[in-house]
Amino acid sequence: MTKVTKVKFVAYVATSIDGRIAKDKKSSSKSWTSLEDWKFFQKSLVSFDAFVVGSNTFKIEPRLKNRNSIVFTSKVREPKKLGKITFFNPEHSNILTFLSKNKYKKVAILGGPRIYDFFLKHKMLDELFVTIEPYVFGNGVPMFAGVFKKYNFILQSVKKLNKKGTLLLKYKHAN
Amino acid sequence: MTKVTKVKFVAYVATSIDGRIAKDKKSSSKSWTSLEDWKFFQKSLVSFDAFVVGSNTFKIEPRLKNRNSIVFTSKVREPKKLGKITFFNPEHSNILTFLSKNKYKKVAILGGPRIYDFFLKHKMLDELFVTIEPYVFGNGVPMFAGVFKKYNFILQSVKKLNKKGTLLLKYKHAN
Repeated sequence: MTKVTKVKFVAYVATSIDGRIAKDKKSSSKSWTSLEDWKFFQKSLVSFDAFVVGSNTFKIEPRLKNRNSIVFTSKVREPKKLGKITFFNPEHSNILTFLSKNKYKKVAILGGPRIYDFFLKHKMLDELFVTIEPYVFGNGVPMFAGVFKKYNFILQSVKKLNKKGTLLLKYKHAN
Repeated sequence: MTKVTKVKFVAYVATSIDGRIAKDKKSSSKSWTSLEDWKFFQKSLVSFDAFVVGSNTFKIEPRLKNRNSIVFTSKVREPKKLGKITFFNPEHSNILTFLSKNKYKKVAILGGPRIYDFFLKHKMLDELFVTIEPYVFGNGVPMFAGVFKKYNFILQSVKKLNKKGTLLLKYKHAN
């Protein structure tokens, strides 16, 4: 039996006031998130061993190609490595075993909604950083795409990042 | 020509971290919002002349029957008054004219998503109070049900209402 090391999962999400993270699945948040959030996000990424994203997010974030990125996709059966990137099907392989084998101990979850939901429902979301930009979108891609259930978090900190009121909230999973 | 007085519209919304305001349109937020938010909300209502809600919200909030409530519905053509309640079709009557005739100057918008969206898209949302309870729902009724557009707001204040981290955010429309 493989010994599975405890991995810390931290999710980062930038959202409108009304919980929308993009106009549609092809659009990047870079067009509307603040410079202050971008700086915080880039600085945070340095401390992680690996990054998990969905295939849509991977397509619109070219910088992920130069990092240890795990791209969740249904298009492979076994994990498929291409340079620093691993295409990974969480329905067919165990992500904890994979991370443990690679000695990845601190993993950032960068979305989209189905990826956030995967870690939420499998009780693997340890921390959640939410940046709320001061916009209402009225519609768009929601933060999580799952099944309704009440997951408890505890607010750890609140930081105002700029004058117009971009807020950075840090939550910890309550259980 | 009827002189239309300037009306102040303030929306109140309680949400999960992921921008969900209810499990479905028949469920009330009372089951999961904090006592601290409830107290803030009840205290705030005192200063308003009237309240606008949708018919689903009206059904699940019996206390609205004792207040000057305007229930948006497609089921009437002309405004229909029953005690303190007016059933009102915003597609057939002008809400500003109606409020002016009744000398209502400060109006609270209490949801749901299509009602919030009506005031947002007609540029009538002056202020927005958002209470974020420390839960992730994964799915449910979104805060706004409209068409994607970037509406600018300015953060006015942030208040932590209790120990687990219920947050009260106050936003002002930016234009």
